[in-house]
Amino acid sequence: MKTRIISGAVIAVVTAVLLVLKGWVLFAACYLLSLMGVHEFFKGFKAMNITPNFAIAAGSVTVLYAVAALGERGAGVLGGDMGSWMMAWLFATVVACLLYLFKIEVRKPEDAMATITGIVYVGFFFYHLAAIGMLDGYSIFVWMVMITAFVTDTCAYFSGVFFGKHKMTPVISPKKTWEGAVGGVIGTIIVSGIFGFVFMRPLLVDCMVIGLLGAVISMFGDLTASIFKRKMGIKDYGSLIPGHGGILDRFDSVLFTAPVIYYYIVLVIGA
Amino acid sequence: MKTRIISGAVIAVVTAVLLVLKGWVLFAACYLLSLMGVHEFFKGFKAMNITPNFAIAAGSVTVLYAVAALGERGAGVLGGDMGSWMMAWLFATVVACLLYLFKIEVRKPEDAMATITGIVYVGFFFYHLAAIGMLDGYSIFVWMVMITAFVTDTCAYFSGVFFGKHKMTPVISPKKTWEGAVGGVIGTIIVSGIFGFVFMRPLLVDCMVIGLLGAVISMFGDLTASIFKRKMGIKDYGSLIPGHGGILDRFDSVLFTAPVIYYYIVLVIGA
Repeated sequence: MKTRIISGAVIAVVTAVLLVLKGWVLFAACYLLSLMGVHEFFKGFKAMNITPNFAIAAGSVTVLYAVAALGERGAGVLGGDMGSWMMAWLFATVVACLLYLFKIEVRKPEDAMATITGIVYVGFFFYHLAAIGMLDGYSIFVWMVMITAFVTDTCAYFSGVFFGKHKMTPVISPKKTWEGAVGGVIGTIIVSGIFGFVFMRPLLVDCMVIGLLGAVISMFGDLTASIFKRKMGIKDYGSLIPGHGGILDRFDSVLFTAPVIYYYIVLVIGA
Repeated sequence: MKTRIISGAVIAVVTAVLLVLKGWVLFAACYLLSLMGVHEFFKGFKAMNITPNFAIAAGSVTVLYAVAALGERGAGVLGGDMGSWMMAWLFATVVACLLYLFKIEVRKPEDAMATITGIVYVGFFFYHLAAIGMLDGYSIFVWMVMITAFVTDTCAYFSGVFFGKHKMTPVISPKKTWEGAVGGVIGTIIVSGIFGFVFMRPLLVDCMVIGLLGAVISMFGDLTASIFKRKMGIKDYGSLIPGHGGILDRFDSVLFTAPVIYYYIVLVIGA
């Protein structure tokens, strides 16, 4: 328990420092975490007798961050628009994963499909945290990614302990209750509202909407990771963080909240 | 054999008419073909005891074409840039496929991963043919998609018959030879060059480069489909086209040549 608290505090401090620094420091950290996350995810498939390819995934994730980095340096470096490069990245990624099947005697479609899924679900999803940190004038929203992921979790836990009666997902995650979920959402909306009031008052309402959307998707992120781990027959994705499991165990909700917040900023607020 | 020739001719005429009309007619046809292709692909997983979800895929493909269609009508309809909408589409698609796993008792990761793969490999790849048909001033390149797919195939066949000695892929597709492959590439570069010379002389060199790239990727498209069918234990994906199999059997190479040509136009030529 003591180990868990200490390492939890260390993670919190490191995360906070990265969020304060934002920009390229956060970008580089996200790149490393994406690679580590994909690696953990792929390891989990072992028990399912599925063998995704980490080399292809590492290459694909590297190209993703490289395209994003070159795009940040202005349109001059890459011709064409960023969106087309991203779509071309998706195409090239899927082709690379399918070519992996050409050694037909030893590989099966599941191997390629797991590689594609890991790249998109872990690498591409996590990339959005880095992308928010690069948004001119909106990079403070990286904090909203963490608020929606971790406040939801904490508020849901305590609401569940105090008011929990009706099981929400008895099979996937037996301890979760509807009362906990509602408490998690309400708590996150409140904290998001306070954060917006203090740090970006003109976007107060947007922060509360993000709190609502983020809290809901955060729980889906948590449950998705639980489902994969259940099917893989593992308790944790890794053991990197003593008492907390691996990168993916700690950031399973961030995978889902980061893209939702990114697209809310870019498409709804219109950054 | 007679059936095969007649239905082949019908397909060729229908395809030619669609390519001449281009624009929204081709766009609508590609949408339908994408749905039919995904459906065929998913059916093939039956023997592998994998159950992708067609409803999610149909929804995702519909949103993809809808986003593209709204994007075409000008930036006014959708706020934000097209690229961000496309990336948001990918995120939403993957989330939807993962949520499919929440019925944990009856579903397994392979079901979700196959759904993701089908949407991207068939739906997203094929969409690029429609996208080329909408490119102002460059829509004539839809013909290059067909030239690279079908001229490669035909030239490879005849070169293989006349000069074929060294097996290229004995396990995946035993009849293919290196001599056939080289003949396919050379033939396609020549036909592409003639096409460029007659219809778009300023882009003659680009047409020949596309011929080279397209011919190579076209063979990968063909072999990828062969691998999936082999693993699925089926000879053809479908029986819609008498003597030719299903949509995917006929357009397996187009899935790969269309995106390559689209990104060549958008990122290299810079349309």
